[in-house]
Amino acid sequence: MIKKLDNNLRGPSEHNVRDQIVEAAAEYFSRYGYEKTTVSDLAKSIGFSKAYIYKFFATKQAIGEVICSNTLSAILKAIDEAMVGSPTASERLRRMFKAVVEASSQLFFEDRKLYDIAASAAGEQWQSCTLYQEQIKKIILEIVHAGRESGEFERKTPIDETVNAIYLVIQPYGNPLLLQHNLHLAEHAPMILSNLILRSLSP
Amino acid sequence: MIKKLDNNLRGPSEHNVRDQIVEAAAEYFSRYGYEKTTVSDLAKSIGFSKAYIYKFFATKQAIGEVICSNTLSAILKAIDEAMVGSPTASERLRRMFKAVVEASSQLFFEDRKLYDIAASAAGEQWQSCTLYQEQIKKIILEIVHAGRESGEFERKTPIDETVNAIYLVIQPYGNPLLLQHNLHLAEHAPMILSNLILRSLSP
Repeated sequence: MIKKLDNNLRGPSEHNVRDQIVEAAAEYFSRYGYEKTTVSDLAKSIGFSKAYIYKFFATKQAIGEVICSNTLSAILKAIDEAMVGSPTASERLRRMFKAVVEASSQLFFEDRKLYDIAASAAGEQWQSCTLYQEQIKKIILEIVHAGRESGEFERKTPIDETVNAIYLVIQPYGNPLLLQHNLHLAEHAPMILSNLILRSLSP
Repeated sequence: MIKKLDNNLRGPSEHNVRDQIVEAAAEYFSRYGYEKTTVSDLAKSIGFSKAYIYKFFATKQAIGEVICSNTLSAILKAIDEAMVGSPTASERLRRMFKAVVEASSQLFFEDRKLYDIAASAAGEQWQSCTLYQEQIKKIILEIVHAGRESGEFERKTPIDETVNAIYLVIQPYGNPLLLQHNLHLAEHAPMILSNLILRSLSP
């Protein structure tokens, strides 16, 4: 059962109501799928009127965006945590790639229904998705930059090309639309692809 | 209109009838989709009895396998032709990658409905598909081997790992299930990924 939200909101600020709607919607979508659910279904299940939900979110996608953004933030956090204490840029790259695959597999596929939102977001290039892709490229850029500074990596190739190429190698394991067909490789691929990338970076 | 086959087969051998069924089925599938079509639909459209088709093919998939195998052979032929006259192993690798993407995009997506068979084949790992993947790996192995012999490529990494890694970089642009989400990259990605692979191969 989806937990009904307390309709007699005395204390909570509008900010809290938004959070409550998002939390209830995430649970509902992950159970019944994002595409098939309407705002009416959602309103009914959490005990709010449709109009009340529309006070906080203009569209279903707006709710989906927040859920998606939270999920992608969790992946970015997992990547950050995985990289803490890496002694070299090479090691940071390895840990980053591994964390992308592990966190994405877990968050998109452990509960298959959350895949639904992620797939819509990736397919329709929602803003949360575009921002996430930029963040990943930024992390790659920082790693390549650090490795070039320390002399670990070659400096001849234009850095944008290097970053783009690495991003393209990683994205089939981060984009849920591609990852769904690559889950059987999720164990093995990050290691041998990290090795290939690192050979390509050697000075 | 699907062209009806000549039902009064006087001259043609059984081999020719098989070919005629495959040809008509390819046209039918590419128009109406593979998944939705039954052998009955197919039989009706080409003017044979269902029983007569079953004389030649045990299942719909058996017909699909031949169509798929023909398509994949066409891609392998395009790759071979693209590589003819390459002066170096590096150049062969570039041409191979480009040909995989171009031929796959054309054959799977130019007529969207043929994607249907290719997707079933890739998703269910039909035999034609597995054989194709082995052929691609064999081509990569030959290129890497030649490049190592000529001194173009490094020899330290176990050759199987090198071949597997290159295969993993290429497959998002050859496997139709992945390629459908990468078509917007089909122009740009093969070049910058070939550059990355070749940097990784440098001695």
